[in-house]
Amino acid sequence: MTNPNAGRALAYYEDFAVGDVFTSGTYRMDKARMIAFAEEYDPQPAHVDEAAARDSQFGRLVASGWQTAAVAMRLMIADALPPIAGGGVGAGVENIAWPQPVLPGDELRVRVQITGARVSRSRPDRGLMNVAASMTRQDGALVLSMSSTMVVCTRPV
Amino acid sequence: MTNPNAGRALAYYEDFAVGDVFTSGTYRMDKARMIAFAEEYDPQPAHVDEAAARDSQFGRLVASGWQTAAVAMRLMIADALPPIAGGGVGAGVENIAWPQPVLPGDELRVRVQITGARVSRSRPDRGLMNVAASMTRQDGALVLSMSSTMVVCTRPV
Repeated sequence: MTNPNAGRALAYYEDFAVGDVFTSGTYRMDKARMIAFAEEYDPQPAHVDEAAARDSQFGRLVASGWQTAAVAMRLMIADALPPIAGGGVGAGVENIAWPQPVLPGDELRVRVQITGARVSRSRPDRGLMNVAASMTRQDGALVLSMSSTMVVCTRPV
Repeated sequence: MTNPNAGRALAYYEDFAVGDVFTSGTYRMDKARMIAFAEEYDPQPAHVDEAAARDSQFGRLVASGWQTAAVAMRLMIADALPPIAGGGVGAGVENIAWPQPVLPGDELRVRVQITGARVSRSRPDRGLMNVAASMTRQDGALVLSMSSTMVVCTRPV
Protein backbone atom coordinates (compact mmCIF):
# COMPACT_ATOMS: atom_id res chain seq x y z
CA MET A 1 0.00 0.00 0.00
CA THR A 2 1.29 3.48 -0.74
CA ASN A 3 0.82 6.33 1.72
CA PRO A 4 -2.93 6.31 2.49
CA ASN A 5 -2.77 10.00 3.46
CA ALA A 6 -0.97 11.25 0.34
CA GLY A 7 -2.57 14.43 -1.01
CA ARG A 8 -5.10 14.67 1.82
CA ALA A 9 -5.51 17.59 4.23
CA LEU A 10 -4.12 16.44 7.57
CA ALA A 11 -5.52 17.27 11.00
CA TYR A 12 -3.46 18.39 13.99
CA TYR A 13 -4.25 18.53 17.70
CA GLU A 14 -5.63 22.07 17.30
CA ASP A 15 -8.24 20.84 14.79
CA PHE A 16 -10.06 18.84 17.50
CA ALA A 17 -12.11 20.19 20.39
CA VAL A 18 -13.66 18.55 23.42
CA GLY A 19 -17.23 17.64 22.55
CA ASP A 20 -16.58 17.12 18.83
CA VAL A 21 -18.46 14.11 17.45
CA PHE A 22 -17.52 12.11 14.36
CA THR A 23 -19.56 9.33 12.76
CA SER A 24 -18.57 6.68 10.26
CA GLY A 25 -20.28 4.89 7.43
CA THR A 26 -20.94 1.17 7.75
CA TYR A 27 -18.72 -1.93 7.68
CA ARG A 28 -20.27 -5.29 6.85
CA MET A 29 -19.00 -8.31 8.78
CA ASP A 30 -18.06 -11.00 6.27
CA LYS A 31 -18.16 -14.57 7.60
CA ALA A 32 -15.02 -15.68 5.74
CA ARG A 33 -13.05 -12.72 7.10
CA MET A 34 -14.38 -13.38 10.60
CA ILE A 35 -13.09 -16.95 10.43
CA ALA A 36 -9.78 -15.91 8.85
CA PHE A 37 -9.14 -13.37 11.62
CA ALA A 38 -9.96 -15.89 14.34
CA GLU A 39 -7.84 -18.65 12.81
CA GLU A 40 -4.88 -16.30 13.00
CA TYR A 41 -5.50 -14.52 16.32
CA ASP A 42 -8.30 -16.11 18.38
CA PRO A 43 -8.74 -19.77 17.36
CA GLN A 44 -11.59 -20.70 19.68
CA PRO A 45 -14.53 -22.88 18.54
CA ALA A 46 -17.03 -20.00 18.75
CA HIS A 47 -15.01 -17.99 16.23
CA VAL A 48 -13.64 -20.51 13.70
CA ASP A 49 -16.15 -23.33 13.18
CA GLU A 50 -19.93 -23.10 12.85
CA ALA A 51 -20.60 -26.63 14.10
CA ALA A 52 -18.24 -26.40 17.09
CA ALA A 53 -19.62 -22.93 17.90
CA ARG A 54 -22.94 -24.55 18.86
CA ASP A 55 -21.26 -25.98 21.97
CA SER A 56 -19.71 -22.64 22.90
CA GLN A 57 -21.06 -20.08 25.36
CA PHE A 58 -22.45 -18.17 22.36
CA GLY A 59 -24.22 -21.17 20.75
CA ARG A 60 -23.31 -19.91 17.27
CA LEU A 61 -20.47 -18.43 15.25
CA VAL A 62 -19.59 -14.91 16.47
CA ALA A 63 -16.73 -12.55 15.72
CA SER A 64 -13.69 -12.46 17.97
CA GLY A 65 -13.94 -9.41 20.20
CA TRP A 66 -10.49 -8.46 18.95
CA GLN A 67 -11.74 -8.32 15.38
CA THR A 68 -14.67 -6.24 16.61
CA ALA A 69 -12.19 -3.84 18.23
CA ALA A 70 -10.06 -3.80 15.06
CA VAL A 71 -13.13 -2.97 12.95
CA ALA A 72 -13.93 -0.12 15.34
CA MET A 73 -10.37 1.18 14.81
CA ARG A 74 -10.81 0.98 11.04
CA LEU A 75 -14.09 2.88 11.16
CA MET A 76 -12.58 5.50 13.47
CA ILE A 77 -9.26 6.07 11.77
CA ALA A 78 -10.12 5.54 8.12
CA ASP A 79 -13.68 6.84 8.03
CA ALA A 80 -15.02 8.86 10.98
CA LEU A 81 -11.93 10.95 11.82
CA PRO A 82 -9.95 13.08 9.37
CA PRO A 83 -6.44 11.77 8.55
CA ILE A 84 -4.10 12.82 11.36
CA ALA A 85 -0.65 14.28 10.67
CA GLY A 86 1.96 11.79 11.90
CA GLY A 87 -0.80 9.34 12.78
CA GLY A 88 -2.90 8.77 15.86
CA VAL A 89 -0.80 6.83 18.34
CA GLY A 90 -2.59 4.78 20.96
CA ALA A 91 -1.28 5.84 24.36
CA GLY A 92 -3.61 3.43 26.08
CA VAL A 93 -7.09 2.05 26.48
CA GLU A 94 -9.05 2.69 29.66
CA ASN A 95 -12.05 0.49 28.91
CA ILE A 96 -13.50 -1.88 26.33
CA ALA A 97 -16.88 -3.58 26.64
CA TRP A 98 -18.62 -5.91 24.20
CA PRO A 99 -22.29 -5.83 25.30
CA GLN A 100 -23.56 -7.89 22.34
CA PRO A 101 -21.88 -10.39 20.00
CA VAL A 102 -21.21 -9.54 16.36
CA LEU A 103 -22.63 -11.96 13.78
CA PRO A 104 -21.91 -12.59 10.10
CA GLY A 105 -23.68 -9.98 7.98
CA ASP A 106 -23.90 -7.37 10.74
CA GLU A 107 -23.53 -3.79 9.51
CA LEU A 108 -21.45 -1.83 11.99
CA ARG A 109 -20.93 1.90 12.41
CA VAL A 110 -18.97 3.99 14.88
CA ARG A 111 -19.61 7.22 16.75
CA VAL A 112 -16.53 8.92 18.22
CA GLN A 113 -16.51 11.78 20.69
CA ILE A 114 -13.53 13.80 21.90
CA THR A 115 -13.93 13.80 25.68
CA GLY A 116 -10.68 15.44 26.77
CA ALA A 117 -7.63 17.17 25.33
CA ARG A 118 -4.43 18.65 26.71
CA VAL A 119 -0.98 19.48 25.40
CA SER A 120 1.72 17.21 26.78
CA ARG A 121 3.77 18.86 29.51
CA SER A 122 6.91 16.88 28.66
CA ARG A 123 6.52 17.22 24.87
CA PRO A 124 4.74 20.45 23.85
CA ASP A 125 4.73 19.25 20.21
CA ARG A 126 2.29 16.53 21.21
CA GLY A 127 -1.29 16.56 22.44
CA LEU A 128 -3.22 13.90 24.33
CA MET A 129 -6.83 13.35 23.27
CA ASN A 130 -9.34 11.25 25.20
CA VAL A 131 -11.69 9.52 22.81
CA ALA A 132 -14.94 7.66 23.55
CA ALA A 133 -16.09 5.34 20.79
CA SER A 134 -19.30 3.38 20.49
CA MET A 135 -20.05 0.90 17.73
CA THR A 136 -23.59 -0.17 16.93
CA ARG A 137 -25.08 -2.71 14.56
CA GLN A 138 -27.94 -2.28 12.09
CA ASP A 139 -30.67 -2.55 14.77
CA GLY A 140 -28.99 0.13 16.89
CA ALA A 141 -27.73 -2.29 19.57
CA LEU A 142 -24.36 -1.41 21.08
CA VAL A 143 -21.70 -4.02 20.24
CA LEU A 144 -18.58 -2.22 21.51
CA SER A 145 -17.75 0.74 23.68
CA MET A 146 -14.20 1.93 24.23
CA SER A 147 -12.42 4.77 26.00
CA SER A 148 -8.88 5.44 24.90
CA THR A 149 -6.18 8.08 24.76
CA MET A 150 -4.41 9.09 21.56
CA VAL A 151 -1.20 11.03 21.06
CA VAL A 152 -1.40 13.48 18.14
CA CYS A 153 0.99 16.14 16.86
CA THR A 154 0.40 19.83 17.51
CA ARG A 155 0.50 22.09 14.46
CA PRO A 156 4.06 23.24 13.63
CA VAL A 157 4.57 26.97 14.18
CA MET B 1 -11.00 -24.90 10.38
CA THR B 2 -12.46 -27.78 12.34
CA ASN B 3 -12.97 -27.63 16.11
CA PRO B 4 -9.56 -26.55 17.47
CA ASN B 5 -10.39 -28.11 20.85
CA ALA B 6 -11.50 -31.54 19.56
CA GLY B 7 -10.01 -34.34 21.61
CA ARG B 8 -8.31 -32.01 24.09
CA ALA B 9 -8.87 -31.92 27.86
CA LEU B 10 -10.90 -28.80 28.58
CA ALA B 11 -10.51 -26.50 31.57
CA TYR B 12 -13.38 -25.13 33.68
CA TYR B 13 -13.53 -22.25 36.16
CA GLU B 14 -12.53 -24.60 38.99
CA ASP B 15 -9.25 -25.44 37.23
CA PHE B 16 -7.94 -21.90 37.72
CA ALA B 17 -6.85 -20.25 40.97
CA VAL B 18 -5.92 -16.70 41.85
CA GLY B 19 -2.17 -16.37 41.52
CA ASP B 20 -1.79 -19.00 38.79
CA VAL B 21 0.71 -17.97 36.12
CA PHE B 22 0.82 -19.23 32.53
CA THR B 23 3.51 -18.47 29.97
CA SER B 24 3.50 -18.87 26.20
CA GLY B 25 6.06 -19.74 23.59
CA THR B 26 7.07 -17.10 21.06
CA TYR B 27 5.33 -15.50 18.08
CA ARG B 28 7.43 -13.85 15.38
CA MET B 29 6.10 -10.64 13.85
CA ASP B 30 6.15 -11.01 10.08
CA LYS B 31 6.33 -7.74 8.13
CA ALA B 32 3.93 -8.87 5.40
CA ARG B 33 1.34 -9.91 7.98
CA MET B 34 1.81 -6.63 9.85
CA ILE B 35 1.07 -4.69 6.68
CA ALA B 36 -1.85 -6.96 5.73
CA PHE B 37 -3.47 -6.48 9.15
CA ALA B 38 -3.05 -2.72 8.99
CA GLU B 39 -4.37 -2.43 5.44
CA GLU B 40 -7.56 -4.10 6.64
CA TYR B 41 -7.99 -2.58 10.10
CA ASP B 42 -5.61 0.34 10.77
CA PRO B 43 -4.50 1.90 7.46
CA GLN B 44 -2.22 4.61 8.79
CA PRO B 45 1.15 5.45 7.19
CA ALA B 46 3.15 4.12 10.15
CA HIS B 47 1.59 0.66 9.72
CA VAL B 48 1.21 0.13 5.96
CA ASP B 49 4.09 1.78 4.10
CA GLU B 50 7.78 1.84 5.02
CA ALA B 51 8.52 5.08 3.19
CA ALA B 52 5.49 6.95 4.54
CA ALA B 53 6.19 5.59 8.03
CA ARG B 54 9.33 7.74 8.15
CA ASP B 55 7.12 10.83 8.45
CA SER B 56 5.00 9.29 11.20
CA GLN B 57 5.40 9.75 14.96
CA PHE B 58 7.25 6.41 15.01
CA GLY B 59 9.69 7.26 12.21
CA ARG B 60 9.53 3.68 10.90
CA LEU B 61 7.12 0.84 10.17
CA VAL B 62 5.56 -0.52 13.38
CA ALA B 63 2.70 -2.91 14.07
CA SER B 64 -0.79 -1.60 14.69
CA GLY B 65 -1.47 -1.74 18.41
CA TRP B 66 -4.59 -3.73 17.55
CA GLN B 67 -2.53 -6.42 15.89
CA THR B 68 -0.26 -6.40 18.95
CA ALA B 69 -3.34 -6.95 21.12
CA ALA B 70 -4.60 -9.68 18.79
CA VAL B 71 -1.23 -11.46 18.96
CA ALA B 72 -1.40 -11.28 22.76
CA MET B 73 -4.84 -12.94 22.56
CA ARG B 74 -3.46 -15.68 20.33
CA LEU B 75 -0.56 -16.37 22.68
CA MET B 76 -2.91 -16.38 25.67
CA ILE B 77 -5.75 -18.47 24.30
CA ALA B 78 -3.93 -20.85 21.96
CA ASP B 79 -0.67 -21.30 23.81
CA ALA B 80 -0.35 -20.12 27.43
CA LEU B 81 -3.78 -21.14 28.77
CA PRO B 82 -5.33 -24.59 28.48
CA PRO B 83 -8.34 -24.84 26.12
CA ILE B 84 -11.41 -23.62 27.99
CA ALA B 85 -14.75 -25.47 27.86
CA GLY B 86 -17.26 -23.29 26.01
CA GLY B 87 -14.52 -20.75 25.31
CA GLY B 88 -13.20 -17.77 27.18
CA VAL B 89 -15.61 -14.90 26.61
CA GLY B 90 -14.30 -11.38 27.02
CA ALA B 91 -16.51 -9.56 29.50
CA GLY B 92 -14.42 -6.45 29.23
CA VAL B 93 -11.00 -4.87 29.24
CA GLU B 94 -9.98 -2.55 32.07
CA ASN B 95 -6.64 -1.41 30.69
CA ILE B 96 -4.32 -1.76 27.71
CA ALA B 97 -0.95 -0.03 27.41
CA TRP B 98 1.61 -0.26 24.61
CA PRO B 99 4.86 0.99 26.24
CA GLN B 100 7.07 0.14 23.23
CA PRO B 101 6.32 -0.32 19.52
CA VAL B 102 6.48 -3.75 17.88
CA LEU B 103 8.80 -4.06 14.85
CA PRO B 104 9.09 -6.60 12.05
CA GLY B 105 10.99 -9.64 13.26
CA ASP B 106 10.22 -9.10 16.94
CA GLU B 107 9.73 -12.33 18.89
CA LEU B 108 6.87 -11.89 21.36
CA ARG B 109 5.82 -13.95 24.36
CA VAL B 110 3.06 -13.59 26.93
CA ARG B 111 2.81 -14.07 30.67
CA VAL B 112 -0.70 -14.37 32.07
CA GLN B 113 -1.69 -14.24 35.72
CA ILE B 114 -5.09 -14.93 37.26
CA THR B 115 -5.63 -11.97 39.56
CA GLY B 116 -9.22 -12.54 40.65
CA ALA B 117 -12.02 -15.11 40.41
CA ARG B 118 -15.63 -15.33 41.54
CA VAL B 119 -18.71 -17.28 40.57
CA SER B 120 -21.37 -15.14 38.96
CA ARG B 121 -24.21 -14.26 41.32
CA SER B 122 -26.77 -14.09 38.51
CA ARG B 123 -25.49 -17.18 36.65
CA PRO B 124 -23.94 -19.78 38.99
CA ASP B 125 -22.88 -21.85 35.96
CA ARG B 126 -20.44 -19.08 35.02
CA GLY B 127 -17.31 -17.72 36.68
CA LEU B 128 -15.62 -14.37 36.19
CA MET B 129 -11.82 -14.40 36.04
CA ASN B 130 -9.62 -11.31 36.16
CA VAL B 131 -6.57 -11.78 34.02
CA ALA B 132 -3.41 -9.66 33.82
CA ALA B 133 -1.32 -10.21 30.71
CA SER B 134 2.06 -8.83 29.80
CA MET B 135 3.77 -9.33 26.46
CA THR B 136 7.50 -8.86 26.04
CA ARG B 137 9.84 -8.92 23.06
CA GLN B 138 13.14 -10.75 22.65
CA ASP B 139 15.13 -8.19 24.68
CA GLY B 140 12.67 -8.40 27.58
CA ALA B 141 11.09 -4.99 26.98
CA LEU B 142 7.36 -4.78 27.70
CA VAL B 143 5.34 -4.12 24.52
CA LEU B 144 1.80 -4.64 25.88
CA SER B 145 0.08 -4.91 29.23
CA MET B 146 -3.58 -5.65 29.59
CA SER B 147 -6.06 -6.29 32.38
CA SER B 148 -9.29 -7.97 31.38
CA THR B 149 -12.17 -10.05 32.68
CA MET B 150 -13.20 -13.37 31.15
CA VAL B 151 -16.40 -15.35 31.55
CA VAL B 152 -15.78 -19.11 31.80
CA CYS B 153 -18.07 -22.06 32.51
CA THR B 154 -18.12 -23.78 35.89
CA ARG B 155 -17.73 -27.56 35.82
CA PRO B 156 -21.08 -29.32 35.35
CA VAL B 157 -22.15 -31.28 38.43
